[in-house]
Amino acid sequence: MTEGEIRPPRKPGLHSLREGTLMTDLTAPPFATRHIGPSADEQQRMLEAVGFESVADLVAVAVPEAIRVKDPLKLPAAATESETIAELRALADRNQVMTSMIGLGYHDTITPAVIRRNLLENPGWYTAYTPYQPEISQGRLEALLNFQTVVSDLTGLDVAGASLLDEGTAAAEAMTLARRAGRSKSAVFVVDADALPQTKAVLATRAEPLGIELVFSDLDGDLPECFGVLVQYPGASGRVRDFRAVAERAHASGAIVVAAADLLALTLLASPGSLGADIAIGSSQRFGVPFGFGGPHAAYMSVREGLQRQMPGRLVGVSVDADGAPAYRLALQTREQHIRREKATSNICTAQVLLAVIAGMYAVYHGPDGLRRIARRAHAHAVTLAEVLRAGRVEVVHEVFFDTVTARVPGRAAQVVAEAAKRGVNVWQADADHVSVACDEKTELAHLERVAAAFGIPVELSDLADERALPAGLARDDDYLTHPVFHSHRSETALLRYLRKLQDKDIALDRSMIPLGSCTMKLNATTEMEPITWPEFAAVHPYAPAEQAEGYLELIGTLESWLAEVTGYDAVSIQPNAGSQGEFAGLLAIRAYHRANGDLGRDVCLIPSSAHGTNAASAVMAGMRVVVVACDDDGNVDLADLDAKLAKHRDTLAAIMVTYPSTHGVYEEAITEICAKVHDAGGQVYVDGANLNALVGLAKPGEFGADVSHLNLHKTFCIPHGGGGPGVGPVAVRGHLTPYLPGHALRDGSPVGPVSAAPYGSAGILPISWAYIRMMGGEGLRSATEQAILSANYLARRLAPHYPVLYTGRGGLVAHECIIDLRQITKETGVTVDDVAKRLIDYGFHAPTMSFPVAGTLMIEPTESEDLGELDRFAEAMVAIRGEIAKVASGAYDATDNPLRNAPHTAESVAADEWTHPYSRTEAAYPLASLRDGKYWVPVRRIDQAYGDRNLVCSCPPLSAYED
Amino acid sequence: MTEGEIRPPRKPGLHSLREGTLMTDLTAPPFATRHIGPSADEQQRMLEAVGFESVADLVAVAVPEAIRVKDPLKLPAAATESETIAELRALADRNQVMTSMIGLGYHDTITPAVIRRNLLENPGWYTAYTPYQPEISQGRLEALLNFQTVVSDLTGLDVAGASLLDEGTAAAEAMTLARRAGRSKSAVFVVDADALPQTKAVLATRAEPLGIELVFSDLDGDLPECFGVLVQYPGASGRVRDFRAVAERAHASGAIVVAAADLLALTLLASPGSLGADIAIGSSQRFGVPFGFGGPHAAYMSVREGLQRQMPGRLVGVSVDADGAPAYRLALQTREQHIRREKATSNICTAQVLLAVIAGMYAVYHGPDGLRRIARRAHAHAVTLAEVLRAGRVEVVHEVFFDTVTARVPGRAAQVVAEAAKRGVNVWQADADHVSVACDEKTELAHLERVAAAFGIPVELSDLADERALPAGLARDDDYLTHPVFHSHRSETALLRYLRKLQDKDIALDRSMIPLGSCTMKLNATTEMEPITWPEFAAVHPYAPAEQAEGYLELIGTLESWLAEVTGYDAVSIQPNAGSQGEFAGLLAIRAYHRANGDLGRDVCLIPSSAHGTNAASAVMAGMRVVVVACDDDGNVDLADLDAKLAKHRDTLAAIMVTYPSTHGVYEEAITEICAKVHDAGGQVYVDGANLNALVGLAKPGEFGADVSHLNLHKTFCIPHGGGGPGVGPVAVRGHLTPYLPGHALRDGSPVGPVSAAPYGSAGILPISWAYIRMMGGEGLRSATEQAILSANYLARRLAPHYPVLYTGRGGLVAHECIIDLRQITKETGVTVDDVAKRLIDYGFHAPTMSFPVAGTLMIEPTESEDLGELDRFAEAMVAIRGEIAKVASGAYDATDNPLRNAPHTAESVAADEWTHPYSRTEAAYPLASLRDGKYWVPVRRIDQAYGDRNLVCSCPPLSAYED
Repeated sequence: MTEGEIRPPRKPGLHSLREGTLMTDLTAPPFATRHIGPSADEQQRMLEAVGFESVADLVAVAVPEAIRVKDPLKLPAAATESETIAELRALADRNQVMTSMIGLGYHDTITPAVIRRNLLENPGWYTAYTPYQPEISQGRLEALLNFQTVVSDLTGLDVAGASLLDEGTAAAEAMTLARRAGRSKSAVFVVDADALPQTKAVLATRAEPLGIELVFSDLDGDLPECFGVLVQYPGASGRVRDFRAVAERAHASGAIVVAAADLLALTLLASPGSLGADIAIGSSQRFGVPFGFGGPHAAYMSVREGLQRQMPGRLVGVSVDADGAPAYRLALQTREQHIRREKATSNICTAQVLLAVIAGMYAVYHGPDGLRRIARRAHAHAVTLAEVLRAGRVEVVHEVFFDTVTARVPGRAAQVVAEAAKRGVNVWQADADHVSVACDEKTELAHLERVAAAFGIPVELSDLADERALPAGLARDDDYLTHPVFHSHRSETALLRYLRKLQDKDIALDRSMIPLGSCTMKLNATTEMEPITWPEFAAVHPYAPAEQAEGYLELIGTLESWLAEVTGYDAVSIQPNAGSQGEFAGLLAIRAYHRANGDLGRDVCLIPSSAHGTNAASAVMAGMRVVVVACDDDGNVDLADLDAKLAKHRDTLAAIMVTYPSTHGVYEEAITEICAKVHDAGGQVYVDGANLNALVGLAKPGEFGADVSHLNLHKTFCIPHGGGGPGVGPVAVRGHLTPYLPGHALRDGSPVGPVSAAPYGSAGILPISWAYIRMMGGEGLRSATEQAILSANYLARRLAPHYPVLYTGRGGLVAHECIIDLRQITKETGVTVDDVAKRLIDYGFHAPTMSFPVAGTLMIEPTESEDLGELDRFAEAMVAIRGEIAKVASGAYDATDNPLRNAPHTAESVAADEWTHPYSRTEAAYPLASLRDGKYWVPVRRIDQAYGDRNLVCSCPPLSAYED
Repeated sequence: MTEGEIRPPRKPGLHSLREGTLMTDLTAPPFATRHIGPSADEQQRMLEAVGFESVADLVAVAVPEAIRVKDPLKLPAAATESETIAELRALADRNQVMTSMIGLGYHDTITPAVIRRNLLENPGWYTAYTPYQPEISQGRLEALLNFQTVVSDLTGLDVAGASLLDEGTAAAEAMTLARRAGRSKSAVFVVDADALPQTKAVLATRAEPLGIELVFSDLDGDLPECFGVLVQYPGASGRVRDFRAVAERAHASGAIVVAAADLLALTLLASPGSLGADIAIGSSQRFGVPFGFGGPHAAYMSVREGLQRQMPGRLVGVSVDADGAPAYRLALQTREQHIRREKATSNICTAQVLLAVIAGMYAVYHGPDGLRRIARRAHAHAVTLAEVLRAGRVEVVHEVFFDTVTARVPGRAAQVVAEAAKRGVNVWQADADHVSVACDEKTELAHLERVAAAFGIPVELSDLADERALPAGLARDDDYLTHPVFHSHRSETALLRYLRKLQDKDIALDRSMIPLGSCTMKLNATTEMEPITWPEFAAVHPYAPAEQAEGYLELIGTLESWLAEVTGYDAVSIQPNAGSQGEFAGLLAIRAYHRANGDLGRDVCLIPSSAHGTNAASAVMAGMRVVVVACDDDGNVDLADLDAKLAKHRDTLAAIMVTYPSTHGVYEEAITEICAKVHDAGGQVYVDGANLNALVGLAKPGEFGADVSHLNLHKTFCIPHGGGGPGVGPVAVRGHLTPYLPGHALRDGSPVGPVSAAPYGSAGILPISWAYIRMMGGEGLRSATEQAILSANYLARRLAPHYPVLYTGRGGLVAHECIIDLRQITKETGVTVDDVAKRLIDYGFHAPTMSFPVAGTLMIEPTESEDLGELDRFAEAMVAIRGEIAKVASGAYDATDNPLRNAPHTAESVAADEWTHPYSRTEAAYPLASLRDGKYWVPVRRIDQAYGDRNLVCSCPPLSAYED
């Protein structure tokens, strides 16, 4: 009996419903059916194509028996979208949104509504991938260039990067950059005693494995011998210091000067560059990015000319396309960890693109005058508060400050904080005798009155004090943000259109499939995304008292326990705010474990040759020596070589890092054996969770032999890529490593320090993954994995007649991604993976991962979220491209002037008056008839990467650059 | 001293701020600076171009002294965006979101989150204009075609329209359609006694002026002689009636059968068409559209073949473009009021496009199986409730029902309702002895338990009853929604991409200026839009008890008082949910006033020849006779003719309807004189508020002589056009007309009945206008008006050297819009306004209003929200087009094969392999170099309007239609 059919009546005039399964039958289809692209029918057709009767049959062949779990995941049954929103609402209601005047690097700010709705809440922006394919990323690259221009202008330094993870890790990156770049051989890094506490703590975590000695100093006297010095500007206590003299002393001894600077303060204060800083770092959070209980926020780094090639993270630069038109792309990529591996100077991959874009747009919206006004207003409020306190006979510690006032209240600090909280304001207890109060964009006189009352000073304020408490010598006297972009979008209409225009240049998941191997670009459901901009999640300061964050703490605890269940580990920390940081935290845990066991010499980390470069970079950061283990022709670990390496390094073995399924997209059969061998040799097993989307619900690393993993919530658990961040990279460990999970920046006593500035990392986006797991339930998660495997195998089958498929496991199956090999094609025809990738743009697709893990190949991960129609559309494009390659091979297409080599084709190029190519305009623009409906038009032609690196421009180019 | 500069220190080492204006100086720029496009600098440049020193000087010349107000508006000082959100939050918190089981045409529903975020909250959809320019409206036209297909399929009737205002007015439209179309000469319209109460009330309001007699009947016996009969299917009480016999009886006597049907019920029940209905009407609210305290929701109407040319409202049809490709556009426009004037059969202009699009997408998302499941589930809950009640010895009135159960509880109804409310559930007290309970998509067993408890029946439910209470003969047995669009977007990813694809086809305000005369397409700020999707505003049933809607009631009261202050009237009702309904309500008030004064014969309504056609149509609906007053060459009322008409109709004069400033965009100097003359003749003065954007803060119709006006909140007060609705058309009156404002459907005793189904009309979007006024304050509103006048005059000056500007007032100035005259150009070159309008698309612009108020002209209203850059961009496009026209004139361009005649040009056409036109591809696609950055590509070429009307197709065409 089919749906809707009606049985003969049982009572006269009334129909019976079918009995038994009624409730189930009438229940809304679970969220999983909305998350998973293919319908049941489509799934059946895909199974037929792959040659299996059921998904269970497929999984039984694809996934090694030895690692498969027997029991379903112990997770709550799947909730509906409405139920999930209601539960998150209840959690949100247990967070308390107070007026935050805590400061310490996190300041309240107004996210302009037009930016929130049209950028932060817009899938056209948040579902985009990292701009490795620059031609389809011109919108977000321009937005990042705006950000870099803001940073470079305000810090007064030559080159700014496209964001780092947080201020603490940015300081650590600056420290290691200083060590590499400075002339001093010293192992000492001097840190301002008035630096932010979380910066100090993260620096300590990062310094120790590298043998760097931190010296905290008030910087007033002589500098010790050192390779670098970090000045907080303004300091955590609010004090504004003129650090010219410090910089001169440092430079005299060959040390590098790092300024950790507040961007808003810099609109009024002399730039770090002008005071002698070589490097500036800091947070751009207060440029419109909500607290989010600590993150995600974009940190920044800028450097003086000469240091840019050693900068960590991504850097957007200007280049030209095939027509000589200006075009943006990531510059100097040869610096990056995925290329430099154990020689890398940083393990950073993910940036905070979405947040950097917001910060840049905040500057576009306000312009220099608006930013200056916001800064002056915060400053004027701080000055007013200081006057009120002094008038009330409370000692104000610093004469000069920007927005933060520190008051001395001997023995009374806790009481003042409590009294302020009673009045709805959080202020900061620096110690038992000191309270600091930070003013920001939102501060009103009424807040100052409440704070004054907390100090026991009754006051009514009607106007701001007309004094500045900035030192005369530090007044900013140069122009900044003079580029027209910071002057042309001041009305909401204008900004809205600018955002739309940039968005339209790009391909994100809201247009088409992004089949990136190992990056798992799946649906980021609206229901998962909505809560993160609720004030109760967005507007909580990371150092708000725990009783104001009960909802957050419960959500975090629950999420950690669910992730532990999914991975088979005993404990999880969500603190690492990127996969790289999770890796680092995992290796730190291993290091600390060995040390606690007295194994001080265990510092060798085995890494298979196929591994992602980040693994090696992280190992180096954790003070380990990388030893490469060979792989066989199928990309599996060469067991003989593993045995040899184990034998050789038995006494010094710390760990092995393997990715599972392998970076080649294969379930290695030997994984349990590898784990056992490493354990036998006294090592720990690190399983990189990048490919966890092939395991969830089917196998658990924590049960099949691993000791630690990091996960990528932005891959497997639906946090969107945001155009290249934010990410969340929790670290998961077995019981013996639990004590060595990352510590809390403000709490002493952890054997391992914090790896992120904020105690809970990018807490603000954790509701996304929480909601995903809640709505999928254990069964839904397993179904998603199964579909991901089926979809990859389906694509492999569709493409195999046209392109060789590399690396298959048992039954000729792949895991959740497949690699197609173009090397022979390239040899025979000259058509490269680059040509195919760029040609896919003409077909409306983002390219698969190029030349990783093997040069000359494309790695395709369809994920479970793509329906059969989209998979077929992609396959058709790939097959059509293969036909074009065949024409090159046969000579029907010219060897160099063909649609592949000239791809991508802009509308301008195919509508040009002259058409000189030997192929037709239709072949260029509409190789498939289906492209005629809603074709994506790429805004630039192929970009010349080398030109941009040779002619490095990393801030907004003048408008004249765009003139013909 | 400029911003940012710092004075010499007063205390050593400290800087002073400049004194005095500090607070103002440091306050965030008011919202008005974000709403108004031009900056102060730009404004100055525009003033120079127009030849004035200041805005005050300009206004002094442009706006007649006689009408200018002396005092500033008495409105609260402008609040910031944050303050406004906080105040709205506080109002929202005074609404109580309960589980609603009230029913009566409004049922709770789940708006899929992907639709809420990417459609309802997306400016790409909500800022679009009515699709009069079909080439740039293909996305929303396709979405409306989906809606029409849903309605046509589910009602089993041939042709469905693109939405009406609400179910009550749709019933009234069906009534008048029946009267026109039926063979009977009777003046009786029979109405189901079980019709919705608001439908009955609106029918009564609409019937009376037209001399239609309503007869309410249980329809069980013989039908009286009548021209039509309306059956509610299912009835308000829940009963499901097989109305075949009623239809047969009606048809036998030449009467038309109207079914008011619930779309969700129709997924299970035999369609109205199959039972004999000629017309079906109803609401699509429960297809994913929130309650919004009564609206906006899309009503629908469908008719059997033969009636479509007499349908009211808009109808989307399929036609072909210049290349013969399928393309959508509004069909049969010659039926519409703006063309038929006093011969119009309806005054409907605005539809409920945004809501119809949501309802259509809800069907796309769920598909027929999903809709059927939702219906079966609601039904099963109702059956379960009926069983529980019966088991608890409560009498259930009807044996057959769909989702609503009516229980007889003699004398206890009020108590049951109160007990249910205590348990968080609203049920309906039909009368003292009856309670009805409606189940919906959200109903759970737990709700039924609470309802049972309210009846005094303790019960725990674990499963649904397995019975259906639908009559055997009414089971639906035909297929519906078989088109692929209802089967292809079931995953969230697929629906997201479909929404994006459609959105990208269209021009809305998020791309470029929409310079529509008289339609005031200004910024719809995000802060204004955000609150409308908060549950506390979205999820309140219109008949929720007043104590649960305190926030709404206060907001409505405040808004009405602010609008009264702005317009100078004594009272305002926001009930009319479109301008046309406001007009009708205003004329009803005049009619009732005259009647109350014993002036039964006053039925002549004077309307200038330049008036919008709706005026005349509304007058006819209000039972008036239209007498046209001539206009002079400048479009002003011809005072001599006015005198003559006044003299002739002195005894029967009811009113004059004038638009001010005139539809020609001029402040008529004689307005006060006109008002006085009409008053002297015993008539009332109706001022159409369409052009209120030229008056706010400068002049008040209620003070310069008018008695009544309607306003368009979707024009002047920032409610977005939503692609053609929703609108809100409040009616404002002077004190003597206050008693005759629209009544409440559920409350007796008003001299005039309701004009909308919901007591507060489209209450759900009123926060938008509330927020606009709150953030602008009186000064901001006046500044906006001034800028709108300046911008129109600036454009007039920019265009005057190229096109004749028609109709200027004193000083050669226009008001807030300007008309350029193409008649001579057309005569000389053959280039028409249509050619210019379509050519503007190639330049990335929506065309101005075409051929209204004068054929052969374009009316341009820039509004205050467009900045100088955009105004100049538009002017450049118009100047460039004038250059193209000159080439046609000179023969440099072919008379017929030129870029104007062939406009718009699709990417496909300019990238075609063959190019046969005598002008170049570059001239076609990139006539200005600035178009090379982010060009909008129109999806179809010029559409053949006549073809589509000759070959009427009004539901989704088969996919084969798109094959080459």
